[in-house]
Amino acid sequence: MFDLYSIKDPSFVKTLSIKELKILADEIREFLIENVSKTGGHLSSNLGIVEITIAMYYVFDPEEYDFLFDVGHQSYVHKILTGRAKEFVNLRKYGGMSGFISREESKYDVWESGHSSTTISAASGMMIADKEKRPVVVIGDSSINNGIAFEGINFLGQYRNMRPIIILNDNKMGISKSVGSLTKSFLRLRSFKFVRKAKSFMQKVFPNFLVSFFHQVKRSIKGFIQRDNIFEDLGFDYYGPYYGNRIDTLIKLLKRIKENKDPVIVHLLTKKGMGYEPSEKDEKGTYHGVPPFDVKTGKPLNKHEGEISYSKGVSNYLIEKKKEHDFYVITPAMMSGTNLDEFASLYPKNIFDVGIAEEHATVMSAGIALKNKDVVLLMYSTFAQRAYDEILNDIARSNLKVIIGIDRAGIVGGDGVTHQGIYDVAMFSAMPNIVVTMPRNMQEAIGLFNLAFNTPHPFVIRYPRLYVKEETYDYSYVSEMKWDILKEGKNKIAIGYGEDITRINNLVNTNNLDIMVVDAKIIKPLDIITLDYLFKTNMDMIIFEQLVASGTLYHQILEYKEKNNYQNKIFKHSFDSEVKIPHGSLDDIFNHFDLSDDDLLKELNK
Amino acid sequence: MFDLYSIKDPSFVKTLSIKELKILADEIREFLIENVSKTGGHLSSNLGIVEITIAMYYVFDPEEYDFLFDVGHQSYVHKILTGRAKEFVNLRKYGGMSGFISREESKYDVWESGHSSTTISAASGMMIADKEKRPVVVIGDSSINNGIAFEGINFLGQYRNMRPIIILNDNKMGISKSVGSLTKSFLRLRSFKFVRKAKSFMQKVFPNFLVSFFHQVKRSIKGFIQRDNIFEDLGFDYYGPYYGNRIDTLIKLLKRIKENKDPVIVHLLTKKGMGYEPSEKDEKGTYHGVPPFDVKTGKPLNKHEGEISYSKGVSNYLIEKKKEHDFYVITPAMMSGTNLDEFASLYPKNIFDVGIAEEHATVMSAGIALKNKDVVLLMYSTFAQRAYDEILNDIARSNLKVIIGIDRAGIVGGDGVTHQGIYDVAMFSAMPNIVVTMPRNMQEAIGLFNLAFNTPHPFVIRYPRLYVKEETYDYSYVSEMKWDILKEGKNKIAIGYGEDITRINNLVNTNNLDIMVVDAKIIKPLDIITLDYLFKTNMDMIIFEQLVASGTLYHQILEYKEKNNYQNKIFKHSFDSEVKIPHGSLDDIFNHFDLSDDDLLKELNK
Repeated sequence: MFDLYSIKDPSFVKTLSIKELKILADEIREFLIENVSKTGGHLSSNLGIVEITIAMYYVFDPEEYDFLFDVGHQSYVHKILTGRAKEFVNLRKYGGMSGFISREESKYDVWESGHSSTTISAASGMMIADKEKRPVVVIGDSSINNGIAFEGINFLGQYRNMRPIIILNDNKMGISKSVGSLTKSFLRLRSFKFVRKAKSFMQKVFPNFLVSFFHQVKRSIKGFIQRDNIFEDLGFDYYGPYYGNRIDTLIKLLKRIKENKDPVIVHLLTKKGMGYEPSEKDEKGTYHGVPPFDVKTGKPLNKHEGEISYSKGVSNYLIEKKKEHDFYVITPAMMSGTNLDEFASLYPKNIFDVGIAEEHATVMSAGIALKNKDVVLLMYSTFAQRAYDEILNDIARSNLKVIIGIDRAGIVGGDGVTHQGIYDVAMFSAMPNIVVTMPRNMQEAIGLFNLAFNTPHPFVIRYPRLYVKEETYDYSYVSEMKWDILKEGKNKIAIGYGEDITRINNLVNTNNLDIMVVDAKIIKPLDIITLDYLFKTNMDMIIFEQLVASGTLYHQILEYKEKNNYQNKIFKHSFDSEVKIPHGSLDDIFNHFDLSDDDLLKELNK
Repeated sequence: MFDLYSIKDPSFVKTLSIKELKILADEIREFLIENVSKTGGHLSSNLGIVEITIAMYYVFDPEEYDFLFDVGHQSYVHKILTGRAKEFVNLRKYGGMSGFISREESKYDVWESGHSSTTISAASGMMIADKEKRPVVVIGDSSINNGIAFEGINFLGQYRNMRPIIILNDNKMGISKSVGSLTKSFLRLRSFKFVRKAKSFMQKVFPNFLVSFFHQVKRSIKGFIQRDNIFEDLGFDYYGPYYGNRIDTLIKLLKRIKENKDPVIVHLLTKKGMGYEPSEKDEKGTYHGVPPFDVKTGKPLNKHEGEISYSKGVSNYLIEKKKEHDFYVITPAMMSGTNLDEFASLYPKNIFDVGIAEEHATVMSAGIALKNKDVVLLMYSTFAQRAYDEILNDIARSNLKVIIGIDRAGIVGGDGVTHQGIYDVAMFSAMPNIVVTMPRNMQEAIGLFNLAFNTPHPFVIRYPRLYVKEETYDYSYVSEMKWDILKEGKNKIAIGYGEDITRINNLVNTNNLDIMVVDAKIIKPLDIITLDYLFKTNMDMIIFEQLVASGTLYHQILEYKEKNNYQNKIFKHSFDSEVKIPHGSLDDIFNHFDLSDDDLLKELNK
């Protein structure tokens, strides 16, 4: 029985026997299930990677090797082994431990990888600058499908003097289901028993002279006696596939690899969610990121009864819309995250989850729109950043009718600093032809989607990571391309969008404030008719935006004021570019950034 | 003898004999050399692709097939065959024909591909929405190295019902030299004579039962009798490599491929620059994009004698700096474009051209900085858009000391709408920790680079695609982290940065205007000490920015004014987000957008 809480640094792992290591693995699993069931967090990937992490610390000394985890949410075991078990009670909580790699937290946290697929490129740079330390990169089968990971492999494969050890953690499932032909080729590789047989058979059958003769056709002959694959094509020594949940095999393998002086890829088959039945059986990715749950039943504790997430609301709308109108839905690996499973089961031919490939998803959507078919592209705000150039050039500049649903817009909570949805409006504000909107409630979300289907331009609808009371919605409702004055008032004007303006409207009404409340649900282009009307009241304005205000509504209104010589004072209630929004519950973050009801009320009463 | 000017549509190609097609190819080459030597433009890639384009129109009917050219600058032959020969006198000129694919120009121009590597994803979308037309994609060996192209191939390889024909135009050289292990694997494929021999030998040697036994190890056996490669791994039928400048082979090959009902990749070896000796011998990419040149000597006509481009100036500086300080230079395929050849020959171990892989280049730079080594990342402004998320997350948020040289900032001239460097400041303005600057002259560029080396933050230095008088520079000069008042004055204040503010200063001085001129060379963060001083003069201000003003200096100054209750009027002289800047000479574009000396003078005198 190990006391995980007493771990100071990972060196103790080296002193254990294989039997003890197995016990350690079991206890870490138990610890993870118990703790994550209380706090929520990333479960499945961490249950799958227990033995790999232990074996890494057994074989490699972190003083000589840099460990990079891609994506950082598969680092829980690493966090336990590097002395952070006691922090798990506050995992992803405000002021508590990050759910990702964090350089502030530990010297063992080398590379912060909130967004996927960057570790191979990062390791490249680290090897260029530091010839002493060899990087050990752990990357999942979904992450390796992203373009930047390919760029990294493509770069590294040509240098024999850069010797990364890349561990491909292949659990057959990424955020939702990993896709792509690379994954298919993994499937082929997985059936490796036959290959082994064939290999030993060939070694017997072939006379040496023949092997020697064909030595020049290296690749072919290699492909014959040892299963050849894309990684060898790209210059790596390939080991695998091996079972990644067998600690003894792993240690032998990694020791062998340690001696290899070439760039190496080790392909390990792991069982995502291993050791917890509900997550082992999970095909949809439900246990990828979980809220607190009941360990016995596997059911989430906060059931959000009578509530609906915006993601689910949008998904329901799309199912309704599809009944009367033909269109396609594209999403980069956010099938489950954006609640599209039901749509997919009803209309499998109309939806494409392209895996972690935001750039491809974006340009593919443009290709569909070019052919005059309607298409809805769904991404999280933070991942849309990966497709900035493609949204700008291939959708906005080209003025193609792609409806872009930006999920998790605004503050996201537990995922923290790398995942905040606070840049997208700044991004879109500089782009031509594009309409940018945010609904104040679920009914308006439906209205804005319907408006988007009627609008011959690129059209962004952003919505938050929030649950709201489920109501009966009018699926035929179409929003108007204008701002809504929610309430008249004589003291000042509060302008904003999204659920924030609903909260503000409620506060104003509850507290009987004589304040005008305006829903600027069309963020771009400005509704100058309403804006002129507002300016002419001569009241001051407060602009509420839950994001980095850079070229966004606040700046646009300032510009309009300046050009038209209005004198109203304009106050800003949003983030500036230097903001760093930590992890924590929405309430905690709201408190931290003067966004609580009390704060808003104070601001309104100023 | 063909009259290229009389071509109305490409159907005439089908009526020609092989002999006539060869003559047509020769005449097109002659036409291209003659015309591009007068106008400038993209030469080498178009000389290499003559036969491929002709064969495409011979074999495929554009009514049934969509032709996609990746990147669009290899479309000159396509433009000639689709009736645009007479437009070549105005190639890339203001009001004249675009140097890229342009949907406004012709119904045959299907997909606008200014930035590379998007065509496979675009074709995916087009096939989803249009089951009738089959896309024929022509993509170069450099473009296919980019992450998004991989994402596209990875997506398509898994669908047997999507049947693109992808022509890999492998001319062994991209914008400068193409790199990466994928390219290396092309090198292996290129030596295909031996493979053919081995193949036929194997077919004799192997008894059938053995072939049949190994049928289950499909990939291995295939790799043995037919050279296997990465594309087959990813689900494509692979043909090649074949010589892509032999019209008869090409036609036979494409006819065969037309019958293939699976996703196909055809690997063609072409000779970049074929038919013009200087471009055939060009290893550096000098004839990739050329200014007007003397056909006889191959020398450029405008010699810029006594002048120096900013790119060259920065390159010279880096060579000097390297003598006293160790650092790395990273560039994504802009070795020649950013004038780094000399640096590379002096310090080959300190420079990495990673090919068209902006995301990888960016994260790799972050990896170097993480190890506390200095690194300079050089990219064009327009291509930096491809790395938005990586600059934001992996450099800016992480506050890593990467010096980012943004070349071709501002209006770029002939390349036109997809290549303008007008978004980068809007991008960077929303990001934390990052310093954004632009020098008013070459000496200040050096000063800002030296300042960047002394600053422990990410640091952007943007510079234009301009030639300036070459002078003796002080390579030890360090700029200060503040704005410079270039001239005092009493009527109003002109604020701007880059060569624009130098022009304005000259205009003000030449015309004896009583105007204060301020160089805001530090665009972010604001120099609030100087700004307060300026506001307190109570003079009006005009903010000059040669870019889309979205969160940029203009908005920042408006925000500062608003927060501090200043009353000075602020005028904007920059682009709004809806701007579309066409191709043309800088002078023409300046005239078009009120940026000529006369326009500026008018603005100053208002």
